[in-house]
Amino acid sequence: MIGGTTTVDEENPMTVASDLAEVLGDRLSRTPEDLQSFAGDSSRAQPEGMPVAVVHAESTADVSATLAWAYANGVRVSVRGAGTGLSGGAVAYPGGLVLSLARMNRIRRIDEVNRLADVEAGVVTSDLDTAAKEHGLFFPPDPASARTSTIGGNIATNAGGLRCVAHGVTADSVAALEVVLADGRVLHTGARTRKNVAGLDLTSLFTGSEGTLGVITAATVRLKPVPAGEPRTFRVGFDRMADAGRAVTAIAALPTPPEVLELIDAYSVEIIESYQPSGLTVPGAAILVGQTVGPGAQAQAEDIVEVCRRHGATDSDIAESDELIEARRLANPALTARGLRVSCDVGVPLSELTAVFEGIEEIARAHGRRVSTVAHAGDGNLHPSVQAGDTREEHEAAEAVIHDITRLALSLGGTVTGEHGIGSLKLHELSWQLDDTSRQVQAAIKSALDPRGILTPGRGI
Amino acid sequence: MIGGTTTVDEENPMTVASDLAEVLGDRLSRTPEDLQSFAGDSSRAQPEGMPVAVVHAESTADVSATLAWAYANGVRVSVRGAGTGLSGGAVAYPGGLVLSLARMNRIRRIDEVNRLADVEAGVVTSDLDTAAKEHGLFFPPDPASARTSTIGGNIATNAGGLRCVAHGVTADSVAALEVVLADGRVLHTGARTRKNVAGLDLTSLFTGSEGTLGVITAATVRLKPVPAGEPRTFRVGFDRMADAGRAVTAIAALPTPPEVLELIDAYSVEIIESYQPSGLTVPGAAILVGQTVGPGAQAQAEDIVEVCRRHGATDSDIAESDELIEARRLANPALTARGLRVSCDVGVPLSELTAVFEGIEEIARAHGRRVSTVAHAGDGNLHPSVQAGDTREEHEAAEAVIHDITRLALSLGGTVTGEHGIGSLKLHELSWQLDDTSRQVQAAIKSALDPRGILTPGRGI
Repeated sequence: MIGGTTTVDEENPMTVASDLAEVLGDRLSRTPEDLQSFAGDSSRAQPEGMPVAVVHAESTADVSATLAWAYANGVRVSVRGAGTGLSGGAVAYPGGLVLSLARMNRIRRIDEVNRLADVEAGVVTSDLDTAAKEHGLFFPPDPASARTSTIGGNIATNAGGLRCVAHGVTADSVAALEVVLADGRVLHTGARTRKNVAGLDLTSLFTGSEGTLGVITAATVRLKPVPAGEPRTFRVGFDRMADAGRAVTAIAALPTPPEVLELIDAYSVEIIESYQPSGLTVPGAAILVGQTVGPGAQAQAEDIVEVCRRHGATDSDIAESDELIEARRLANPALTARGLRVSCDVGVPLSELTAVFEGIEEIARAHGRRVSTVAHAGDGNLHPSVQAGDTREEHEAAEAVIHDITRLALSLGGTVTGEHGIGSLKLHELSWQLDDTSRQVQAAIKSALDPRGILTPGRGI
Repeated sequence: MIGGTTTVDEENPMTVASDLAEVLGDRLSRTPEDLQSFAGDSSRAQPEGMPVAVVHAESTADVSATLAWAYANGVRVSVRGAGTGLSGGAVAYPGGLVLSLARMNRIRRIDEVNRLADVEAGVVTSDLDTAAKEHGLFFPPDPASARTSTIGGNIATNAGGLRCVAHGVTADSVAALEVVLADGRVLHTGARTRKNVAGLDLTSLFTGSEGTLGVITAATVRLKPVPAGEPRTFRVGFDRMADAGRAVTAIAALPTPPEVLELIDAYSVEIIESYQPSGLTVPGAAILVGQTVGPGAQAQAEDIVEVCRRHGATDSDIAESDELIEARRLANPALTARGLRVSCDVGVPLSELTAVFEGIEEIARAHGRRVSTVAHAGDGNLHPSVQAGDTREEHEAAEAVIHDITRLALSLGGTVTGEHGIGSLKLHELSWQLDDTSRQVQAAIKSALDPRGILTPGRGI
């Protein structure tokens, strides 16, 4: 364990945490209901034991007091917003503290002229987007979970989502951060200017660090103007995955990217439709669903459909309705409900989309398993999933499929995680992608900022 | 000195560096000409003494050998590409080594499908742009010095430039890095994918770290498609700086930014025109010069001119020629030639442009000095300059003007450096912007990665 952290006496958690309770009052909860419901996240990772307490922080001072106490006492801390993470990064440590930022949910300011918003970490992502729209602006990051996930969690994992193909990842929209360090000190990073090179880029370092270096309590994020006109949603069907892959690579060569470009394979469409009928027609192999915006939305959608036709598309339509995009957002709950809980989050260069789709088909055949693939196709970011099963053997067989897919993505110059992060579930995969020097540099930075290793230890890096 | 670094015996540099010379052969130079010409950079910072040797690295292995030797011997290393830095970051240390990457200038690959280029650090920025254009792509970062500065230096300082208003800073175009660490180990960061959240974002950490954490030897950078059609260059004159400021803020509220949006005040136009006549008409107070691109370039330029007219513009024109943009690039050499060598690189939020312009006028009056202001106006990034003078008193008087402007920018929520970096010249200003916690975190990271403090010590952070 990094820095020789010890955990508090699990037998007497009440005694040990009582001095923190004095500071926090009823923001520190030890009810069995809270301990239970804040122990896990939205991944398949299970806590190895119960935490001693849940801190419902309402201010930066609460977070600072909590970490100063945890640091002094060598207590491990897991950090969470809405608990929508899919990599087990927010799962509680046995005898640890759970630090929840969900109550820090104020939008402090929307600065229309500079297109910035000052928000607390617990603001729900789509709430910020809604508030920005009142100023003719929007918040570009749009994870599929935007209606429940929080900005702090989005930043801590450098979340992706549906609009990355046009606007980049969450990191591209972060201007400045307020971070509480492991020992309780408060750090401010970044600036309100467009450009700022004073000192190291700590904003980017903390973004995506998955709670290992500090706890993000507030952020200044960048907004963009809402495009004029009505968006168009396009749907294109393919009989072969490889054709869909070639079509996406060709769409990427167009001068302007669409706002959204998602792929849902036939198996996933079937599962979404049986979970909640959404008007998705089950295709031969896969559909591309996407959106174009701005004054040229219709013409751009037509161009994209035309490119798809040249690459073997079997049918298509263009509509003004958002319905199909909303149907795409149902993929994760629908797959989870059907038991497809073993999944990954690989990324490949866009040139390798056809290769990865063909490879997944081969892997599915070799394992005799059905693989569902939903992808942020325009970014080359795929979420293949398989049925978890009930027994340990079944689970291991499922993991073996996903491991093969992950290795395939890496062999194509890819990444083990495009947007969900490493958390606890993918830690064993990190060394598949990063060499010893990279791991050592990350450990050195972790150790420099959290020498006692209390913040999300053993995860993320 | 960080990590207790010692320098080699300045009396006997030949002896001390001879084991490194054995490895590097004639890539290690100790000629007086080389020591002299590689001791300084393009800033007004002067070396405090001569280096012991200049390493003309031709490969990552050369860099690795150099740093391993320097690390083992506690020798300070300054790192340089073309030496175009304006903050003294590349100035030699007395008794130190100069590590030049200028010979590592191969463009290894342009990957058209994924819009990536693999380049060595010493590639001249505009050479990459030219090579990319053969594939219908371009390299967005475009510092005014693009024809001489190198990619490695651009990344190490997170350089800005003329196209940031549309494409962001250099960091926004960096996908992956090859870095040699202080002790000679080679680190690879990032990925060729659009999205990648495996581990800490080391790519962003090293970008802009000004050689303090490692030496960037190669990079994978992002390219964009060349817009269709001919660009348009617009020029708009103003009789009052405040009007120009308001016009820029209004242009920033348009849905699409121009490709370039620069401000040159009357004093600077006068200096540029006398340095090299470029067809810039000297305005009452300032001109905005900018460019629009793509199929709507003419209409967008007209919209911008119209916005300027509503904010008090006195005259304007729109042309297809690049000449005025080229004239803007002459500002730095022209000002330097005229002796306006005391300058800064402040940034302010766009909402504060008028305030900063009015404030600079007040400061100029209060000091009884003329201030030249050239600005990447669309980013709120200003380069005010004043005459350095010959005596120490004159120099201090010049510094006092620039200090007041820097303090003003900070009071408006700004930064002490938008794109030139801290180097050695602005180190005293860093604490004006960053608090102790921020400085401590940066020092902790520096110490974790370079415990002996051999890499660009005492600068940048």
